[in-house]
Amino acid sequence: MKVHTLGGYEEVGRNMTAVEVHGETVIFDMGFEMEEVIGADGEVDQMTTNETLKTGAIPLDKSIMDNDVSAIVIGHGHLDHVGAIPKLAGAYDCPIVCTPYTKKIIERNLENDRKNIDNDVIAVEKNEDYKISENLDLEFMHVNHSIPGATLSLLKTPEGNVVYGNDMKIDYSPVIEETTDVERLKKAGENGVELMIPGTTRVDAPGRCRSEKSVEVELNDVIDSCYANGGAVVLTTFSSQISRLNSIIEANDGRRKIAFVGRSLKEYTKSAEELDLIDLSDVEVVSYFDECSDLMNKVSNEREQWLVIATGNQGEPGAQMDKLASGTYPFEFREGDHVIFSSQVIPTPLTRANRYTLEKKLKEQGVRLYKEIHTSGHAMKEHHRDFVNLLQPNNIVPSHGHIQKLGVM
Amino acid sequence: MKVHTLGGYEEVGRNMTAVEVHGETVIFDMGFEMEEVIGADGEVDQMTTNETLKTGAIPLDKSIMDNDVSAIVIGHGHLDHVGAIPKLAGAYDCPIVCTPYTKKIIERNLENDRKNIDNDVIAVEKNEDYKISENLDLEFMHVNHSIPGATLSLLKTPEGNVVYGNDMKIDYSPVIEETTDVERLKKAGENGVELMIPGTTRVDAPGRCRSEKSVEVELNDVIDSCYANGGAVVLTTFSSQISRLNSIIEANDGRRKIAFVGRSLKEYTKSAEELDLIDLSDVEVVSYFDECSDLMNKVSNEREQWLVIATGNQGEPGAQMDKLASGTYPFEFREGDHVIFSSQVIPTPLTRANRYTLEKKLKEQGVRLYKEIHTSGHAMKEHHRDFVNLLQPNNIVPSHGHIQKLGVM
Amino acid sequence: MKVHTLGGYEEVGRNMTAVEVHGETVIFDMGFEMEEVIGADGEVDQMTTNETLKTGAIPLDKSIMDNDVSAIVIGHGHLDHVGAIPKLAGAYDCPIVCTPYTKKIIERNLENDRKNIDNDVIAVEKNEDYKISENLDLEFMHVNHSIPGATLSLLKTPEGNVVYGNDMKIDYSPVIEETTDVERLKKAGENGVELMIPGTTRVDAPGRCRSEKSVEVELNDVIDSCYANGGAVVLTTFSSQISRLNSIIEANDGRRKIAFVGRSLKEYTKSAEELDLIDLSDVEVVSYFDECSDLMNKVSNEREQWLVIATGNQGEPGAQMDKLASGTYPFEFREGDHVIFSSQVIPTPLTRANRYTLEKKLKEQGVRLYKEIHTSGHAMKEHHRDFVNLLQPNNIVPSHGHIQKLGVM
Amino acid sequence: MKVHTLGGYEEVGRNMTAVEVHGETVIFDMGFEMEEVIGADGEVDQMTTNETLKTGAIPLDKSIMDNDVSAIVIGHGHLDHVGAIPKLAGAYDCPIVCTPYTKKIIERNLENDRKNIDNDVIAVEKNEDYKISENLDLEFMHVNHSIPGATLSLLKTPEGNVVYGNDMKIDYSPVIEETTDVERLKKAGENGVELMIPGTTRVDAPGRCRSEKSVEVELNDVIDSCYANGGAVVLTTFSSQISRLNSIIEANDGRRKIAFVGRSLKEYTKSAEELDLIDLSDVEVVSYFDECSDLMNKVSNEREQWLVIATGNQGEPGAQMDKLASGTYPFEFREGDHVIFSSQVIPTPLTRANRYTLEKKLKEQGVRLYKEIHTSGHAMKEHHRDFVNLLQPNNIVPSHGHIQKLGVM
Repeated sequence: MKVHTLGGYEEVGRNMTAVEVHGETVIFDMGFEMEEVIGADGEVDQMTTNETLKTGAIPLDKSIMDNDVSAIVIGHGHLDHVGAIPKLAGAYDCPIVCTPYTKKIIERNLENDRKNIDNDVIAVEKNEDYKISENLDLEFMHVNHSIPGATLSLLKTPEGNVVYGNDMKIDYSPVIEETTDVERLKKAGENGVELMIPGTTRVDAPGRCRSEKSVEVELNDVIDSCYANGGAVVLTTFSSQISRLNSIIEANDGRRKIAFVGRSLKEYTKSAEELDLIDLSDVEVVSYFDECSDLMNKVSNEREQWLVIATGNQGEPGAQMDKLASGTYPFEFREGDHVIFSSQVIPTPLTRANRYTLEKKLKEQGVRLYKEIHTSGHAMKEHHRDFVNLLQPNNIVPSHGHIQKLGVM
Repeated sequence: MKVHTLGGYEEVGRNMTAVEVHGETVIFDMGFEMEEVIGADGEVDQMTTNETLKTGAIPLDKSIMDNDVSAIVIGHGHLDHVGAIPKLAGAYDCPIVCTPYTKKIIERNLENDRKNIDNDVIAVEKNEDYKISENLDLEFMHVNHSIPGATLSLLKTPEGNVVYGNDMKIDYSPVIEETTDVERLKKAGENGVELMIPGTTRVDAPGRCRSEKSVEVELNDVIDSCYANGGAVVLTTFSSQISRLNSIIEANDGRRKIAFVGRSLKEYTKSAEELDLIDLSDVEVVSYFDECSDLMNKVSNEREQWLVIATGNQGEPGAQMDKLASGTYPFEFREGDHVIFSSQVIPTPLTRANRYTLEKKLKEQGVRLYKEIHTSGHAMKEHHRDFVNLLQPNNIVPSHGHIQKLGVM
Repeated sequence: MKVHTLGGYEEVGRNMTAVEVHGETVIFDMGFEMEEVIGADGEVDQMTTNETLKTGAIPLDKSIMDNDVSAIVIGHGHLDHVGAIPKLAGAYDCPIVCTPYTKKIIERNLENDRKNIDNDVIAVEKNEDYKISENLDLEFMHVNHSIPGATLSLLKTPEGNVVYGNDMKIDYSPVIEETTDVERLKKAGENGVELMIPGTTRVDAPGRCRSEKSVEVELNDVIDSCYANGGAVVLTTFSSQISRLNSIIEANDGRRKIAFVGRSLKEYTKSAEELDLIDLSDVEVVSYFDECSDLMNKVSNEREQWLVIATGNQGEPGAQMDKLASGTYPFEFREGDHVIFSSQVIPTPLTRANRYTLEKKLKEQGVRLYKEIHTSGHAMKEHHRDFVNLLQPNNIVPSHGHIQKLGVM
Repeated sequence: MKVHTLGGYEEVGRNMTAVEVHGETVIFDMGFEMEEVIGADGEVDQMTTNETLKTGAIPLDKSIMDNDVSAIVIGHGHLDHVGAIPKLAGAYDCPIVCTPYTKKIIERNLENDRKNIDNDVIAVEKNEDYKISENLDLEFMHVNHSIPGATLSLLKTPEGNVVYGNDMKIDYSPVIEETTDVERLKKAGENGVELMIPGTTRVDAPGRCRSEKSVEVELNDVIDSCYANGGAVVLTTFSSQISRLNSIIEANDGRRKIAFVGRSLKEYTKSAEELDLIDLSDVEVVSYFDECSDLMNKVSNEREQWLVIATGNQGEPGAQMDKLASGTYPFEFREGDHVIFSSQVIPTPLTRANRYTLEKKLKEQGVRLYKEIHTSGHAMKEHHRDFVNLLQPNNIVPSHGHIQKLGVM
């Protein structure tokens, strides 16, 4: 068995690993380097392959170009796992295999992208067996992360079983989804795991991440406080955080009308709605400039009747939060209005500067800020102990990046 | 009206303020400097007044010794508000006025202390009027903090109303108690507030503290995880955090037997039980060495049947957590046991070293650590905005200390 | 005596204080908020007064507009002390008084500015008496800072003496200048100081700043190392740091040709040369685009024959360092070239992002970086003790700003 | 060729590496874990081997116990390189080889230690060839560090040359010693280096460490300032820093009498004097309690005539600085006295607490503090680039520990 570490090792974002067994190769993930990408409505999609390659944002897969690749297995739908598919997958004559929500994300990405590829995208439910080839079988095992449909992939080979998955945690109080399938993992461990490839970005952080339910309660409390004080309320979070968006709808409890503003919010939530992961029947979802403008005009006249959820939580120039703070739309913040950041600042100098600029604009308009109402989706030290205890792998190849960039979402 | 800032200004711990109106003086709080005190079972009580004075741990009240003092008003029962009473109150011929839980704390302190004083301690319910003198009336207004019976004190004087209270927040999702009495505060503001004396330790921290309920959910999740993994589970928190202790009992949900280990835990919880603030009927509470030793012997033989709550969350040498980690009792930690810190490290070098030493001992025994499952009881920036908006004071005298020491509990 | 704190209190940059005695007013400093300004070749000069006012970058002097102002006294030539002169001084019918180097700086600023003012600018040598009016006398006392001609201003009034000066330190090993005139200060103290107005930005920093001579030795060592390794060497520092520039010429010791690149370097050094504070006879000084371009073309062909000093040490977009790193000129960095930052990063998010971007560009080209070869010019705790011990003032009005922004240069 | 990484890999302090070639083994270093040791006058010496083994402070050498070891090569005399010799060397029937100053340190350690060993200790001058065996030759190459006699060891084997040395830097402005022998290193590189084993503790720190000469100038400046202010002056530094001690004598320039107080100071400086590395003729060196007491009594009566250098710069309880601050001797600090720390705080919680306690005691007595007048002896990023460029090794095995503990001295 041979492991090709093509991307996401000693760096972040462009995850890609290939496992070669008996002359056959399976690719895990095809990710995009996130730094330029997060919250940037649309930019990735408009790049050509060549432009993308020049940025260094996608993995270098030359070393396996001549391999016999029988499947591309995708663990979940974040850009650092699916973002390079439109640029790289076409070179491999094999299907892309993933869970249903991830399939939706990939298909939207492909639609938006300039480049056409013709790989099949096959959705496989968790706990079902998928036959890759005569020798290889695949099963997705359910784990918690910060997007629906996150998995640990179990590849069964003649040389023993491989568990791949670099973004996961165990949440005993999740929102809308089940706790990580501890029993299944335990059984996998009992059946023998030859190799485990975990993501170890936050392995040094002591303890466990807060549960998503705990964040929901905190959000509840903040929203109660904002509503008690009155004024406009705008919230921003990561668009793929479908659990969080459910929690917000729950916390609002019908008190205000809800609007989702921004393209990535639209993409991720529409996909989720199709799988009954979120109910958008009472949510106004807008993304084109005119739609956003009209919506914010309405909000401007009914300030205390709306809860606005917008993209751009990292302060990305041009994203919706930046537009709102800059007066791009017919809406102006007033003294005593509220902005809630249900996210964490990605600790790079550029992002810090963007957020600083965004917050400065908001403060100058008298806006009250609520920050870091958030939990990470990445396993910390005690989660890692749990995973290793459950899977009892014979070998571990840690995939990891710098904590500074990854590990927030 | 004249304000004497006797302690707790540009320092922490020994809070004491006196307000003088028309020749009459009211004292607010008589606190003890916390650095030496936190978690130290018993030490304060055994000091004489002279020893205490030498340490610089209690306020210097010489400038008001000859005043006509008509009441000592105590906001809540933390040591930095009540700790100096046994040493200083005796010099004033007037009653001590406080809410019922605070009265219990004060009485236990007095019992334990070497020094006798004979001031009456008068319990006044929140929202009731207490006549201090012909000219002065007092009312306690309910606020959230991190101990039962916390108040903003409203002193009505011929020169206008004074609101004193330096530890408070607004929690829209509290545990066992009500949300801060926003309506009462608003009415107080409408009636006019000449002077407000707020504690501003965390005024620079953006946003609001997490709600106590959010911590409960996080505790739930951590305890679920520990129980799923098995092994001994020990938790440590601040002893006066009665809400937190209720949350723990709730989170345990009858799954394990519960023990409270340590003198301060016993004192604070017994007082709470007398006021129906906690139900100890299913909790074993021990404090004397032999009791603790017997209890831990039992735990040693029934490791997965007990949830032990112990004092000493800051790693104070000699406190129960230190004893447990050092093998003082017939109990030894094993690989895979769990210790949960439902508290925050007070960020002073001495405390950091204590905690480092405690954690090192625990890690060397293979214990898994869960840290900072906690929220502060101190108003942050948006709480302060709320309080000022509600009370609309004509003047503000900020009482404040260094964030490094205060603001954790 | 009345003190008007017009700018530079609880903020940084736009220093301005007015002292009113017996109906007569003396203004100290007219500064510009530095955040937008540092290293920005030319920007300030091209703003109109109205544009400047809108930015909030200059002091609000309305409260003294109707006073009888008899002098504008300037402590030294940094922009946060002289930058607002072209915009504000014209409104006062009185001379501007300063030391000779500061006069040169002011005159260049006035030449470059769109706005004309006709105040006399009077150069007064240190230790000489200048008669402001019948009642008021002025003397400049020599102190160390990070620009030639820095002073403590001693104003003698019928109500007692005032010492103003918010940027100073005592350097027992200075470069090209004398140590702070300790004897003069001591005598001033013995004669009585009614009021002292010191800048206290770094008063919390323990100890003393490193001496300028110590930085010279470090520079020497770094330059020796760079020359031993070979390759192009570019250094960047604050343009007004004339001592530092002398140290660099000294450290180079004729081994390479030296070029100063950038407008602010030209302005500050030409003024210094006129007062014999630096010898530019062997230095090529360029500032216009074509000059810079030609120079760098030469450097490109004689890489190991030049030591280039450039503006833009904070990574300001458009400044010379940014241009060099971006390939604006016919010069490209090569693997193993060296860039020396003889400065400190101003710790604001925007500056950090600028520097991060600059350093990233340089690293991608294989450049070796040497950082923080620098000392601050601002008194730290033990300097402040010295100044207070020497001057023995009856009253102190601390002028201070946030450490984050000030206190670097 | 086989490399045994016995200590100092992924940890600090107990450095030990063994290189095995053609059935013959050479050991490099036998170090002691520093955390418990620094500044602790005498403690190490009084431990038995068994006590030492229990602490985990010395390397685990079981895997080479049966090897044919032909030499123990010691790079320099710090405890993390020589400290385990008294406990471990006796088990190997071979000589210990080192430079002359290191030999002196080892011999003193052996004299003080309870345990007797009978290995020869052979001093070899730098640049001379030492024949270990028929197949193996050794040469010490001169490098800068923070103790005299520091080396890179060049082992010539039939399988190619090995360069070992984990503490080194290049200082172009050293004090009392020469700059690292760059020419020799370059020639070694040209002759071929099969394997390099560098210490990489500070490899992530950008740039280069300040030169020792730059620290001397800073010390000069601080001492000038202290003398100008008057009062007692006490300085503390690492005892093995012979260059620094020379700089202090130089900076004092005969103005005050000098005393060295503490056992480790005595040991290191007496050894240095025997090799003409320091002139102690005008220095009073004391270490026994009564000597120290008498000396400080004298200082007490002649406060402005002495410069006292004492051990205990990390605030170690019981070391001389602690004793001085605690009033152990007939000497008391007065308001305005000065304490200079020519060292850096080792950033572990325990050391921070010790230093905090020491500084608190000093401040309470009114002492003025000057801190971090220091440079590290450990290569930073640009030094490492230099070493790799010079040696051009075919393979690198990085030896490294946590920056938190190592890399200060």
